[in-house]
Amino acid sequence: MPSKCKIDPVALNQLQTLLAERVSSQTAILQQHGRSEAYHHPELPDLVVFPESTSEVQEIVKIASQYGIALIAFGAGTSLEGNASAPQGGICVDMTHMNKVLQINDADMDCRVQPGISRKTLNAQLNGTGLFFPIDPGADASIGGMSSTRASGTMAVRYGTMRENVLGLEVVLSDGRVIRTSRRAKKSAAGYDLTRLFVGSEGTLGILTEITLRLHPLPEAVSAAVCPFDALDDAVNCVIQTMQSGIPIARIEFLDAEMMRGINLFSKLGYPEKPTLFFEFHGSPAYVEEQAQRVQDIASEHNASAFQWATRPEDRSRLWHARDNTLYAGMALRPGARAMITDVCVPISNLSTCLLQTYQDIVASGLIVPIVGHVGDGNFHLLILVDPENQQEIARAQNLHDRMVERALSLDGTCTGEHGIGTGKIDFLKNELGDAVDVMRMIKSAMDPKNIMNPGKIFRL
Amino acid sequence: MPSKCKIDPVALNQLQTLLAERVSSQTAILQQHGRSEAYHHPELPDLVVFPESTSEVQEIVKIASQYGIALIAFGAGTSLEGNASAPQGGICVDMTHMNKVLQINDADMDCRVQPGISRKTLNAQLNGTGLFFPIDPGADASIGGMSSTRASGTMAVRYGTMRENVLGLEVVLSDGRVIRTSRRAKKSAAGYDLTRLFVGSEGTLGILTEITLRLHPLPEAVSAAVCPFDALDDAVNCVIQTMQSGIPIARIEFLDAEMMRGINLFSKLGYPEKPTLFFEFHGSPAYVEEQAQRVQDIASEHNASAFQWATRPEDRSRLWHARDNTLYAGMALRPGARAMITDVCVPISNLSTCLLQTYQDIVASGLIVPIVGHVGDGNFHLLILVDPENQQEIARAQNLHDRMVERALSLDGTCTGEHGIGTGKIDFLKNELGDAVDVMRMIKSAMDPKNIMNPGKIFRL
Repeated sequence: MPSKCKIDPVALNQLQTLLAERVSSQTAILQQHGRSEAYHHPELPDLVVFPESTSEVQEIVKIASQYGIALIAFGAGTSLEGNASAPQGGICVDMTHMNKVLQINDADMDCRVQPGISRKTLNAQLNGTGLFFPIDPGADASIGGMSSTRASGTMAVRYGTMRENVLGLEVVLSDGRVIRTSRRAKKSAAGYDLTRLFVGSEGTLGILTEITLRLHPLPEAVSAAVCPFDALDDAVNCVIQTMQSGIPIARIEFLDAEMMRGINLFSKLGYPEKPTLFFEFHGSPAYVEEQAQRVQDIASEHNASAFQWATRPEDRSRLWHARDNTLYAGMALRPGARAMITDVCVPISNLSTCLLQTYQDIVASGLIVPIVGHVGDGNFHLLILVDPENQQEIARAQNLHDRMVERALSLDGTCTGEHGIGTGKIDFLKNELGDAVDVMRMIKSAMDPKNIMNPGKIFRL
Repeated sequence: MPSKCKIDPVALNQLQTLLAERVSSQTAILQQHGRSEAYHHPELPDLVVFPESTSEVQEIVKIASQYGIALIAFGAGTSLEGNASAPQGGICVDMTHMNKVLQINDADMDCRVQPGISRKTLNAQLNGTGLFFPIDPGADASIGGMSSTRASGTMAVRYGTMRENVLGLEVVLSDGRVIRTSRRAKKSAAGYDLTRLFVGSEGTLGILTEITLRLHPLPEAVSAAVCPFDALDDAVNCVIQTMQSGIPIARIEFLDAEMMRGINLFSKLGYPEKPTLFFEFHGSPAYVEEQAQRVQDIASEHNASAFQWATRPEDRSRLWHARDNTLYAGMALRPGARAMITDVCVPISNLSTCLLQTYQDIVASGLIVPIVGHVGDGNFHLLILVDPENQQEIARAQNLHDRMVERALSLDGTCTGEHGIGTGKIDFLKNELGDAVDVMRMIKSAMDPKNIMNPGKIFRL
């Protein structure tokens, strides 16, 4: 163990006794755990540990509590706001060894998993049950990380976010006690909704060790379509009318002309480079056809220039693969750049206004900024491409971001639809929720009086 | 003001200055606010106040905080677990003067209301918008009360509970500060989910003064059906298969033979007195027909003895009116009795076991106990009919209830699917969630250090 490790040597010794070789302070390991896909400066932990059970997590927490050492739970490292960085050093608790499916209950359509499993691995293990876990944030994130940031993504418009799909949690509290936040009933009015309190708390209130998830029946039929528009307004109005019609659309994704250019470049496709909606429909064969026909009618009313179907699984998969890779496709527009990714979400009636004013800002900034959005929920992302060495460019990007968040708040929206606050949006949160942030602080102080659980995230104490 | 009022005279004077005649300690008013539809012994407040604005609520809270007086928010008085009783006396804050719809946003399918409005009044005011608020707990409860107990009811299987349908809250905290828990975006990952923390907290963390609700498009077509079975098992298996099929059924309600007898008696109907499912389907005309056909096929596979349609609005309305009156219909089976109402909810795979073992207990108890359930969610209610003067009968009823909750917990269920803990289920909650209740206490103590917000509910401090 290199001598620069800042963990108290007695604590370190206790951790090594507990975990043997599953304790590391190798530089490469620290670096891998101090950065994620965020554009933020990496902040390295002093140590990384790899527990394999709840009781090991419990022992780690007791040691950290005794010595006042920060603990940062870590999953797939796909978060975007420094949610799992270590600004105060401390111990990164890598959960990827805890990656089992513990129980699948077909009749109840739920399952219990360890937090380190990724969503794609979970879905592979659900193969043959007729059920799936729909939440799809793009990246192959861990279920623990998705729960902690209240993730959502392309399917949220139909299946909800992690808020709606986490049924219960096992959590190790800051004093080492283990609680379960609920039983396995589909609903409950039994006291405070601790499940929802932990979902989205970014590891600041405890470490998740088991997660019970709601599953959904695999749709009998699926079809998808790509639909370009000449005008942004028309695309957004098509979305609004689709939502109001009550059609339970499974996905409705917006990509702007610039992003379509990136996708064509990155995935070697030939889509029209216009504001475009990607649709997906789930249901019985007859109902999928009915939904698709109704949406096609709505799109035509709003001057869609085409409605290109992808009904064969391989075509659909190519389509969504292209969509899922927007981060890399966007970055392909400027090789060597990093992406500052924004995440505002506004009431859908304010989406046109928010997008159109943002475009004026983008033009003024002179930067390359593709846009992709889960527009059924009013959530969209700018990928502001910046040269990481160019401070002046980064300042312009930050200004663009600041102005957009201010705009989203003035339109009754939020600074983050799904990425969380992390270290990157602490000031935005205060502007968004005012004194409500004090209530969050009260809860944090009551539940983690030594401030060892992922300190420095969401708010300043 | 009668002299027996236990409120500090200076505080009382301040309240009268603030609210003039909207302060009462008349016996009839106190009695009306000390009891609800619960079977529990009434617990009267010392005073009832009728605020008309958030700032009045704020002033009331400041006065109560200064003098350490308990505050109990009160809506329609339809709760069932003593959730709004006043075991420590204090001030009942009757919210029924704050009953306005403040904003309806058609395009976003949401609205902002004051907490005193009832769900039926809200739906009447939504008339013409093409939208509705679906949550239907049977009683014409207030939206504030429904939010506070995390209510649900017959439509939850399709539209979710109050947890999924409250988008944001304005809350007066115990120190008189006013916060908003979220902006109006459909989803957000901005810090702790305070909205969900207050939903279901039964007024113990603050007083709700504004509620933003999600609305849903009125279905184009609706159809309903009544389907009796000879065997309970068959009815439950029909429910499980319907849920797994992914059919988005709008309601699927179970009534046992005894309850059907009560309904026939109370509503002068002639349904077969057998275990029965009531169904409702929402969607486009073609899709409603498809859903209904598929469910009819599933019911036939499970030996349903008939499938009686109610497609005309007046027939459907008669059907659901009968269902909504199960409380009174049940009580009609034993005039003069009161109903001890239970509320367990179990994973649906355990529903047959839970119901069948409960029936054995009912028979052994010798009591009349009709059953009604939101079985798509695994939630059902016994109406244990007791002579309120007969202590021995009440003890038998309590024993039946205790055993059933123990059974539900052993089947991974909850003691309350939708009524909340109130004063009636405090011990059950501890058995259900163990140390998690300590976390609730920590939060309560941090947010309401003087314990003035609906004290004595959910847990003991």
